[in-house]
Amino acid sequence: MVTKELVSNCLTTSFDQIPDEVKIHGKLSLLNWLGVTIGAARDSSIDMLVDLSKELQSAEQVSLYGREEKVDLLMGVLINGTASHIFDYDDTHLDTIHHPSGPVAPVVLALGEHLDLSGEEILHAFILGCEAELRIANAVYPSHYQLGWHITSTTGVFGAAIAAGILLKLDEERLSWALGIAGTQSSGLREVFGTMTKPFHPGKAAQNGLLAALLAKRGFTSSNEILEAKRGFANVLAPEHDLSKVNSDWGVEWELAKNSFKPYACGIVLHPSIDACIHLKQEVNEEDLEYIELKVNPYVLELTGKQNPQTGLEGKFSIYFTAAVSFLKGEASEKQYTDENVKDHTINNMMKKIRVVVDDEMKEEEVLAKAVLHDGTSIVYKVQHAKGSLGNPMTLEDIISKFKGLASGWSYESVRDGYIDSFLNLESVTSVKELARGGN
Amino acid sequence: MVTKELVSNCLTTSFDQIPDEVKIHGKLSLLNWLGVTIGAARDSSIDMLVDLSKELQSAEQVSLYGREEKVDLLMGVLINGTASHIFDYDDTHLDTIHHPSGPVAPVVLALGEHLDLSGEEILHAFILGCEAELRIANAVYPSHYQLGWHITSTTGVFGAAIAAGILLKLDEERLSWALGIAGTQSSGLREVFGTMTKPFHPGKAAQNGLLAALLAKRGFTSSNEILEAKRGFANVLAPEHDLSKVNSDWGVEWELAKNSFKPYACGIVLHPSIDACIHLKQEVNEEDLEYIELKVNPYVLELTGKQNPQTGLEGKFSIYFTAAVSFLKGEASEKQYTDENVKDHTINNMMKKIRVVVDDEMKEEEVLAKAVLHDGTSIVYKVQHAKGSLGNPMTLEDIISKFKGLASGWSYESVRDGYIDSFLNLESVTSVKELARGGN
Repeated sequence: MVTKELVSNCLTTSFDQIPDEVKIHGKLSLLNWLGVTIGAARDSSIDMLVDLSKELQSAEQVSLYGREEKVDLLMGVLINGTASHIFDYDDTHLDTIHHPSGPVAPVVLALGEHLDLSGEEILHAFILGCEAELRIANAVYPSHYQLGWHITSTTGVFGAAIAAGILLKLDEERLSWALGIAGTQSSGLREVFGTMTKPFHPGKAAQNGLLAALLAKRGFTSSNEILEAKRGFANVLAPEHDLSKVNSDWGVEWELAKNSFKPYACGIVLHPSIDACIHLKQEVNEEDLEYIELKVNPYVLELTGKQNPQTGLEGKFSIYFTAAVSFLKGEASEKQYTDENVKDHTINNMMKKIRVVVDDEMKEEEVLAKAVLHDGTSIVYKVQHAKGSLGNPMTLEDIISKFKGLASGWSYESVRDGYIDSFLNLESVTSVKELARGGN
Repeated sequence: MVTKELVSNCLTTSFDQIPDEVKIHGKLSLLNWLGVTIGAARDSSIDMLVDLSKELQSAEQVSLYGREEKVDLLMGVLINGTASHIFDYDDTHLDTIHHPSGPVAPVVLALGEHLDLSGEEILHAFILGCEAELRIANAVYPSHYQLGWHITSTTGVFGAAIAAGILLKLDEERLSWALGIAGTQSSGLREVFGTMTKPFHPGKAAQNGLLAALLAKRGFTSSNEILEAKRGFANVLAPEHDLSKVNSDWGVEWELAKNSFKPYACGIVLHPSIDACIHLKQEVNEEDLEYIELKVNPYVLELTGKQNPQTGLEGKFSIYFTAAVSFLKGEASEKQYTDENVKDHTINNMMKKIRVVVDDEMKEEEVLAKAVLHDGTSIVYKVQHAKGSLGNPMTLEDIISKFKGLASGWSYESVRDGYIDSFLNLESVTSVKELARGGN
């Protein structure tokens, strides 16, 4: 009955019943998703997907954000969904290490453009799709993730199917079939992390979930209890699970409200150290500095202990590079993680002044930083909740600034800047087709 | 090293190194696949997929066998692959309950048409793709299947990627990436059995595997040890596995040579009883018959004990209907399993004369049949190896006859009949593009 109840919950929750706070979080999630997507849209892996769409003579149906080409509906969600996860700079539901927008946002934007829906319609579907996938993630985390599944795509395919099914106006039976068709395509192995195939996961989940809904709409039959059946999703993909989490407190608790946004373009464990180094930069002149000591949780060094990163991507796994560049540049956005910067002489010299001490007493979201100067004096700064964590969320200004930084490489300035207002006032957008083209 | 060795084995096995017996089996597998595909091509689920391809404005790149429409390369393999499994009448590798052609044949035919390759090239790729997927299946069977995975699609995606990768002339590194991209899409839950989503599985595996190879060709990076890695395919999807089976005796033992073809359009457990009833029909006049007793393995009644099937599909799970129709019509092809036949008065009367006795001593492939006449005399007939089993395989004439029966509903007679010669002499076909259009 879990699947049936989820379907019923999704189909009976009207837009008006969603709290304002959740709607705001939904709009910020979409704007954040759009920024990371535009920012990575010229990546070579996206060039490859676009090249494939040309070989397939894909019809010009929907927009690729951050590019000029148009492709067909299913190809569009694959490409936009993949782009959004390339920088690993997208949103995070911390309880399940899930990036909820990745598989759902491309679906509502592409269907919204294809069917010319309103902003309110796509925001409604987006919120419910994210809510569904995050609740399914709660039900199977952590055993499912620990076994080796990339939870963003394995559960994201359900979120994509729910969002698409709502926009396609499926009834209860067909929406349950859509979940059946989606669930039997659930996939994504953590083994491919560190390759182009990791960001491919949310794109493929988006595409598979949308395909499921498009087929169910036509009467394509499937299981109507895919989540709980003996040979269904939870039993086959999660050694331990608690499916009661899927529907409990529906409409009262909102998982999407726990979504967080990264201020820095690297793993969350580095964020406290970045906060500290940016702060110390304001208090210390570089020429006076002897060294910076960072006291961190042991897990931080285990994950990001690379001493000599050779590429920008490897720089994201080096606390030495990350702390050095944060101190020198005052930020740690995607622009800092370049192949040039990891070999830059000034930054390399600064890396030698970063000392890391591990301490079991330090929590993962904390750091105790100490800048020791040549004259022997020192400045101590403690971070308890890194920026971007739930205890210290990014402000609206932070998110807009992040979007502008990411989108700045795209030449369509008028489109790009128009998006900020449009997405922050999505309920007022009457035509997502116009929105996609930079109108509204 | 398992993935690397498999890639190397596939890339170094030339067409000439494949034994003639395996080549013949490959061609029969393709012809058998083509028949079941054409036969089911007008199913309503295929209409739905074609309708979706119209919404997507899919380009007219490759043929749909048994239909007039053309669709793009990726959509074509999805649709043809799905059609092939609708009747559950396709080939079977009995050791793993795997239908090897389903995910591989649509890929080699579509790529062969798209790139205009030769018959020898696609036969070569087909044989190696099937060999790879069956060996991977051997390595994870039975725990993987028992957990709930549909082994045809979960391992078929690798076969599709191998076959496509060979035709796209990938080098070792890129073919290993293709397996990485394929493996992370591996999916298909047995929960959806009994719905339209079951035959969707080999189609989706074909599409996912082809997509993997098309991306790897462009340099899309992925894991190069997807089969054996800690968070790779075997460890995550199979509680128990023996990956040594993937490469052992490569080039000496051929799993594809163990592929079998179904003479009857229902589960294999019913085949001995059908053999017996068709035989008894030749010895007994219907009006003299009091009853037929079938002594079978208990498993047969457990799986096919339906006394009053209401649909043609349910008839496949009724030994009473199946035996009755086999005795009356002398065959058990797809044409017998109709909604009309299960309600037919004459057949229903005959069903009352079928008695089933279970006996642990009987093997699954055996039946002891006894026809008892009104005058008290009886005729006994024992089947030890049902037709279509490895001990009593279908002859070339049987397979051609099955193809003709399945293809007879398609109006393109000249195309259809030309296929038989073309597929049986595939090495001589110079243009698969012409072949697809009925030439050669």
